Amino acid sequence: MNMTRYLAEKRKTIEKALDSYLPPASRKPTTIHQAMRYSIFGGGKRIRPILTLASAEAVGGESEVALPIACAIELIHTYSLIHDDLPAMDNDDLRRGKPTAHKAFGEAVAILVGDALLTEAFRLIATKNFRAKIKAGTVLKIIGEIATACGSSGMVGGQVVDIESTGLKLKPAKLEYLHLHKTADLIRVSVTSGGRVGGGTSQHLSALSTYGRTVGLAFQITDDIQDFDSKQDIGTTLGEKKASYPVVLGMSESKRRATELIDQAIYSLRGFDEKADPLRGIARYIRTRKQ
Amino acid sequence: MNMTRYLAEKRKTIEKALDSYLPPASRKPTTIHQAMRYSIFGGGKRIRPILTLASAEAVGGESEVALPIACAIELIHTYSLIHDDLPAMDNDDLRRGKPTAHKAFGEAVAILVGDALLTEAFRLIATKNFRAKIKAGTVLKIIGEIATACGSSGMVGGQVVDIESTGLKLKPAKLEYLHLHKTADLIRVSVTSGGRVGGGTSQHLSALSTYGRTVGLAFQITDDIQDFDSKQDIGTTLGEKKASYPVVLGMSESKRRATELIDQAIYSLRGFDEKADPLRGIARYIRTRKQ
Repeated sequence: MNMTRYLAEKRKTIEKALDSYLPPASRKPTTIHQAMRYSIFGGGKRIRPILTLASAEAVGGESEVALPIACAIELIHTYSLIHDDLPAMDNDDLRRGKPTAHKAFGEAVAILVGDALLTEAFRLIATKNFRAKIKAGTVLKIIGEIATACGSSGMVGGQVVDIESTGLKLKPAKLEYLHLHKTADLIRVSVTSGGRVGGGTSQHLSALSTYGRTVGLAFQITDDIQDFDSKQDIGTTLGEKKASYPVVLGMSESKRRATELIDQAIYSLRGFDEKADPLRGIARYIRTRKQ
Repeated sequence: MNMTRYLAEKRKTIEKALDSYLPPASRKPTTIHQAMRYSIFGGGKRIRPILTLASAEAVGGESEVALPIACAIELIHTYSLIHDDLPAMDNDDLRRGKPTAHKAFGEAVAILVGDALLTEAFRLIATKNFRAKIKAGTVLKIIGEIATACGSSGMVGGQVVDIESTGLKLKPAKLEYLHLHKTADLIRVSVTSGGRVGGGTSQHLSALSTYGRTVGLAFQITDDIQDFDSKQDIGTTLGEKKASYPVVLGMSESKRRATELIDQAIYSLRGFDEKADPLRGIARYIRTRKQ
């Protein structure tokens, strides 16, 4: 299958849905609604929501039914980027070549836009009727899993450890813990919630959980590798770097680990038929996209 | 009935439940879990969760079943205070006589603690089975209503308008809009979600919505009055003040408006029997507590 075309098509579907779900920029107070749209439509590959749709399809479900959950996950991902970019955190001025939310709207509004997107994510999932195709109890389970993946023992917990580790020399196990929570937890739940909404069995969900965790970690490693390369180019010193795989494990070991994780991810799908080909393709895409 | 005793008893029930629901301070990463507990157990009257329990009782339900929702609302209230206190917002060093979260744990952790508490609130509601006494569909409705009340068209929207209005001379209608969203929306949903979980009819819920809105606005006005008085004492000039009722309407008109709203709140409960006496008592308590 043509992965480039698949990703482009799904991305278009997701952006259309995001546009229809988000409050219009004209709604009062306009500042916050404009800022929400500025942040959501600031580019991005939409990998997480695409994984949700692809996982729903992999277990034999309709990806369209999974759209509200896929979009909610993208709202959560965007909120986490806005808060990570704040002066008190990574203090980044640019995100995907555009001013970050706090540069464009001020720090107070940026904090509130993050808060609003996180809240809107749960509102979106709770208020869609999913064309009556999913039981309310299943939707509650998904909300619980997403909140667990994003909370103090998940994504937010990982971000805390990341902040506390800046400038420290980490051991590999601690680094893996950090990225497992900061990055992989949200990717894993993008996958499992897609599988759940698509009607997957508990066997499906267990396999998808392994796929999500391994792909999520591999995603972070390839990100670190690219980041390391670009910082070498602009001459950042080692001390300025945040905890990353190339710094802790070295470049060749980082690449080996990414390849190993992608192999594990693809192997975890051995019980799935060709409907899981997009998931297999995304795993391969993550390995090759940046190295 | 003895309101002081009622409030003290309910407060104790809520704090015990909060203690049992929140992750232990020893859970990794410990920084975030310690900071969550520091912020949640930093005092506070627990008026919002008490309103949830009292509303469940008012419609003939068991207040115990409403505890997870009541506590979730307190988590949301606490997250909003932590983010409001940040340097980029109100820049407050003290909250209830103790250092604010960013003073105690640093700004980055304070932002993340707010994020974690908001996420935990939805996790709490979604993962409790409510002793099988509430339908999953009803729980979803409650999540949707809470998210709507707290999001970009509710509490967060009100906070944006508050920030944009600082130093400006507001018209009374704009001030009421601001406080309706910043303060009253969360109080209203504390009341209506209690009524919903207690099995209230749509007539009940409509009356409770009026009660919550009027009590919520009255709560903000009496808060503004107390704040104005204390700032007069320490000599804050008018220009430093945020938009408030005494500044916009004058003191005597503010007191008249608070009384009028409390009367409306009590009148809205005319179809309820003596089980709504705690709600009536809380309304009177709000009027008298600070003037």
